[in-house]
Amino acid sequence: MVIVMESIATEEQIQKIIDLLTRKGFDAHRSTGATRTIIGAVGSDAGALDPRDFQLMEGVREVLRITEPWKLAGRVFRPEGSVIAAGAARGSAQVSFGGPEVVVVAGPCAVESEEQIRKVAASVRRSGARVLRGGAFKPRTSPYSFQGLGEEGLRLLRAAADEQKMLVISEVMDATQIDVAAKYVDILQVGARNMQNFTFLRELGKASLPVLLKRGLSATLEEWLLSAEYIMAGGNHAVILCERGIRTFERYTRNTMDISAIPVIHKLSHLPIVADPSHGTGLRDKVAPMARAAVAAGADGLLIEVHHDPDNARSDGAQSLHPEQFAELIGQLKVILPAVGRRLA
Amino acid sequence: MVIVMESIATEEQIQKIIDLLTRKGFDAHRSTGATRTIIGAVGSDAGALDPRDFQLMEGVREVLRITEPWKLAGRVFRPEGSVIAAGAARGSAQVSFGGPEVVVVAGPCAVESEEQIRKVAASVRRSGARVLRGGAFKPRTSPYSFQGLGEEGLRLLRAAADEQKMLVISEVMDATQIDVAAKYVDILQVGARNMQNFTFLRELGKASLPVLLKRGLSATLEEWLLSAEYIMAGGNHAVILCERGIRTFERYTRNTMDISAIPVIHKLSHLPIVADPSHGTGLRDKVAPMARAAVAAGADGLLIEVHHDPDNARSDGAQSLHPEQFAELIGQLKVILPAVGRRLA
Amino acid sequence: MVIVMESIATEEQIQKIIDLLTRKGFDAHRSTGATRTIIGAVGSDAGALDPRDFQLMEGVREVLRITEPWKLAGRVFRPEGSVIAAGAARGSAQVSFGGPEVVVVAGPCAVESEEQIRKVAASVRRSGARVLRGGAFKPRTSPYSFQGLGEEGLRLLRAAADEQKMLVISEVMDATQIDVAAKYVDILQVGARNMQNFTFLRELGKASLPVLLKRGLSATLEEWLLSAEYIMAGGNHAVILCERGIRTFERYTRNTMDISAIPVIHKLSHLPIVADPSHGTGLRDKVAPMARAAVAAGADGLLIEVHHDPDNARSDGAQSLHPEQFAELIGQLKVILPAVGRRLA
Amino acid sequence: MVIVMESIATEEQIQKIIDLLTRKGFDAHRSTGATRTIIGAVGSDAGALDPRDFQLMEGVREVLRITEPWKLAGRVFRPEGSVIAAGAARGSAQVSFGGPEVVVVAGPCAVESEEQIRKVAASVRRSGARVLRGGAFKPRTSPYSFQGLGEEGLRLLRAAADEQKMLVISEVMDATQIDVAAKYVDILQVGARNMQNFTFLRELGKASLPVLLKRGLSATLEEWLLSAEYIMAGGNHAVILCERGIRTFERYTRNTMDISAIPVIHKLSHLPIVADPSHGTGLRDKVAPMARAAVAAGADGLLIEVHHDPDNARSDGAQSLHPEQFAELIGQLKVILPAVGRRLA
Repeated sequence: MVIVMESIATEEQIQKIIDLLTRKGFDAHRSTGATRTIIGAVGSDAGALDPRDFQLMEGVREVLRITEPWKLAGRVFRPEGSVIAAGAARGSAQVSFGGPEVVVVAGPCAVESEEQIRKVAASVRRSGARVLRGGAFKPRTSPYSFQGLGEEGLRLLRAAADEQKMLVISEVMDATQIDVAAKYVDILQVGARNMQNFTFLRELGKASLPVLLKRGLSATLEEWLLSAEYIMAGGNHAVILCERGIRTFERYTRNTMDISAIPVIHKLSHLPIVADPSHGTGLRDKVAPMARAAVAAGADGLLIEVHHDPDNARSDGAQSLHPEQFAELIGQLKVILPAVGRRLA
Repeated sequence: MVIVMESIATEEQIQKIIDLLTRKGFDAHRSTGATRTIIGAVGSDAGALDPRDFQLMEGVREVLRITEPWKLAGRVFRPEGSVIAAGAARGSAQVSFGGPEVVVVAGPCAVESEEQIRKVAASVRRSGARVLRGGAFKPRTSPYSFQGLGEEGLRLLRAAADEQKMLVISEVMDATQIDVAAKYVDILQVGARNMQNFTFLRELGKASLPVLLKRGLSATLEEWLLSAEYIMAGGNHAVILCERGIRTFERYTRNTMDISAIPVIHKLSHLPIVADPSHGTGLRDKVAPMARAAVAAGADGLLIEVHHDPDNARSDGAQSLHPEQFAELIGQLKVILPAVGRRLA
Repeated sequence: MVIVMESIATEEQIQKIIDLLTRKGFDAHRSTGATRTIIGAVGSDAGALDPRDFQLMEGVREVLRITEPWKLAGRVFRPEGSVIAAGAARGSAQVSFGGPEVVVVAGPCAVESEEQIRKVAASVRRSGARVLRGGAFKPRTSPYSFQGLGEEGLRLLRAAADEQKMLVISEVMDATQIDVAAKYVDILQVGARNMQNFTFLRELGKASLPVLLKRGLSATLEEWLLSAEYIMAGGNHAVILCERGIRTFERYTRNTMDISAIPVIHKLSHLPIVADPSHGTGLRDKVAPMARAAVAAGADGLLIEVHHDPDNARSDGAQSLHPEQFAELIGQLKVILPAVGRRLA
Repeated sequence: MVIVMESIATEEQIQKIIDLLTRKGFDAHRSTGATRTIIGAVGSDAGALDPRDFQLMEGVREVLRITEPWKLAGRVFRPEGSVIAAGAARGSAQVSFGGPEVVVVAGPCAVESEEQIRKVAASVRRSGARVLRGGAFKPRTSPYSFQGLGEEGLRLLRAAADEQKMLVISEVMDATQIDVAAKYVDILQVGARNMQNFTFLRELGKASLPVLLKRGLSATLEEWLLSAEYIMAGGNHAVILCERGIRTFERYTRNTMDISAIPVIHKLSHLPIVADPSHGTGLRDKVAPMARAAVAAGADGLLIEVHHDPDNARSDGAQSLHPEQFAELIGQLKVILPAVGRRLA
């Protein structure tokens, strides 16, 4: 933490700040320049200081907070980057996130029936997807909307994936669903609205499966990494971040995909980051442009909603690609990938 | 839902829209004007239509969504407004939210010790608070911060409140904490980060205690009321809304209190709304101005953090009032209340 | 500026930072703690350093920027606060902003006719307004909307105000309108969309009339004060700030009034701040609650749109009070003002 | 405009709405369904209705506004898309925006000296840029920052461009600078902060040069297109849109580039859209990823800041590429372009 004094701050006011810092166990470093004094607080536990305590003191112009000390999630912790392998725990074919290969995850928004999920699985596998997605537990803004098939959905998802030698990812909405999901999936997905559900994050830290952590609708990158830190602090270091659009003033698209989060996260953290242009835009005809953009910006993977009959999908059909649109997109990605030194998984 | 066609839309394109609406079981009402055609979809289950399905069709300029059909939370459901009584379940003295009296809830951010909570309780009761607040389960952005005393905190809180004949409110963070909290508190508090934790909201719908539901950091009023609807749809109609500041671009204050939410909620919903200027601003010297503003705008109550020794509080000391500041604020409120035809509870 | 190094930063990386700072003419103060090193740059011209130059260097974790050095607008420049008198230049009755009296400015959104402005002026004066507002040059988002009566509007405004012994405020949209407006008004108003029209601000710095500077729709308080600084740096220190609502995700109200800006500006700056609940909410029935809130939070004045026949107003009728609503509001304000130690001007 | 009535609205309330619409000269179309009535207003001048007038009436649940009727800027006006040629007016080599070729504009943030601009021009031309950029009039948030070389800067820019057979683009900050800039440049640039400077936009409508219109920091796409409409309504149809980042809660990057604006604008409007990843991110190492992303998403061009010695640039050096980074980026773009069926201009 750094405290910037007003140019007219008195010596007494400065001393009071230094005394308080010292009392709290910090080293206070004073820098006096031509126009003002700044005081740096350096200690082993910066999180223990609340900048606002100092902001309220006399003679203080502003207090600059040093970013919360995420430790495990920071790039410094593993400068070479993390490669997170999924599938090993269940004996599935392994797929790695964060290596030279870009992984495509595809499937319907929600698992609706055996026929549906088998059809979609076969089609996306043919085009190049390695992981099958599909919602069984659905978070819905309205209590009156379709809430998913539950465990039966997971069972269907697993069966369809096994048939195609694919991995499975599906969303869990709270701690009570982790065990049941773990029977079927290779990767646990955490939705945007749960990004700061801290008791849940702590439970995920005890899970033995990789976790795909979606960014909250208005979360900063710092908050996102701190949520990853919660999971990692519990012992589970296999966290894959997923950019899925943030809330902005624009209403034409459902959300605004923050493509720049991709290179920024790569600088701040060693964790892989994938992009979900289906939720990120909410509109089918925007999915391909944003998927191409994400890969061109360096994404480690993509989550794409695909449905064999989007017009009759039970949720989010409007953002699901037709299978042939998905195939065409994969073709475009193959052109782009060499520009960033990557290839398709 | 209303579909606005492009001025150059063809008759065939218009007909396709109408066909799709009819197929989905809706009445399609066509209005053709000098410049364009608009099509209204009226049915009993508007939530079943996804506007984006139409937005992607040829000839469509834009699709206007009619607000999600919250039912129980809407003003229409109870035009005279709800008065929510707390305390009855436990035989505590009753306090009502939404009636002619404005209720003041006060107490420390976190329960730290018996001495602390007893001191604060005595002091805020003397000034005019009727309900005691205090965190036992603390949601923290960083996994390395103080996480609260848990059930022991609740016990201390209850004892201090009983001594002062006050009611108790405290935050629960997930479904597993509801039962234990219900042993001690009169009102269950749901934090901003849990506003869209839908599985949790559903559980709260089964609780027999009133729920104070804080607004999410970037939630719209529509989303907030839909979250209230989740609780109410489960059978628990005793929901008190709490404005606690939203995220904006401003960094000087921690959040930006949306005072206008107070009169707007009063128009949209019959539920009472209280304000939390402590979290809403994050800075002690801004608490009193914003508390006065909230009451002047028609708030049904206030949540104020008070600590007998804020400089040594274990969390959020910077936003806690000194007891004498709290007393002074109550004095100011007594001047303001007659201007809105209210009195202190 | 303060540079926070990574915990693993090398001595060489630290030295490079210090060298660059020194080369740019700054004192570099190094503070080394248990976990990391931070480097403070203190000099007389902090604006000359671009934090991003350092953010890109090896071993740097983050760079904290010290707030831009506004000088004239800062509280430090005049700790006792500024009282800005308007009217003197034209021999009008004087009204002061920032003193013990709260000033009410009222009138229609746009001047429409002699009859309209005379009627409104008489009515608001009777209720307690001291300054008459009315747009003659109207900024409109669409090129096809009513753009105001221009100079003729100013003439009518002045005449109506003189008749009632009121002062006049009206908006100017660019430098070419300053001279013509100065013939008629006592205070020049700058609209939200022009808050960062820097060439315009510079011209206003040469004007001899007070300037009421509205806050931009998504401006931070820092940016707002820097815009005030532009005017003040040109020699015109008579700047009145006006909070008029910021853009947030909420769509029910046109804007979200940031009531907390009032106490925060009072801490950061010596300039008076008034509130415009008409634009701040955009809805007539929200104007009174927000006007009361602004005054309860310490506003130095109010701008209220009033129209004798809002249903037939040529612009913004929906946010204009009926004269009797305005009178009722003034009555409520008189109850509230003593709570903040103020009285009506 | 569409008015949605409450389910309990009375026949009398509905009739009042219809009467008001009729009185204002609109056709009112009533659609009555099982749960509620909606009323559509169709007329030739929708802009003349203020939705809020109806929002305040009894029995109204909500009012849906049909998007402002931009006419000239809408895709409908020219479904095949506009190709805007620059350079013709001055006899410069022509470059077209919006055709099969993607145009790269490059150069320093500000023109600093003859040597600087000549060096940069030669280098970016060699790599593939066709248009030279460089600021002569600089908008600065602080009045104390470097404000540009003015007309001398334009002269140097033109000379350097002529030497390399390049076109010139430079920013103008108000109407008074249009004529002087027109002597030197091929394209007039309007900055983000001037996007809603309506008197200025009207003047640009009379100019005979293409205008590159940057998106405002918190502007919606609708507002942006309405600003383009202002220019086009004045007679100048040669408008090129430029996405340059919007303000979000993220602080790590200066702005958040809204890549999705590219495909959305292509759907809503016939105007070409280019991207400015230098301002869009504010950080050199994020420029290349975002430039690749923009092109992969379908951008018609790029604006890239390049400086031969960024560390000593007088402004925005931190977001300027080194010439060799720029060359490398162009190489990557050449790989990506075929994926979107485009080639470099």
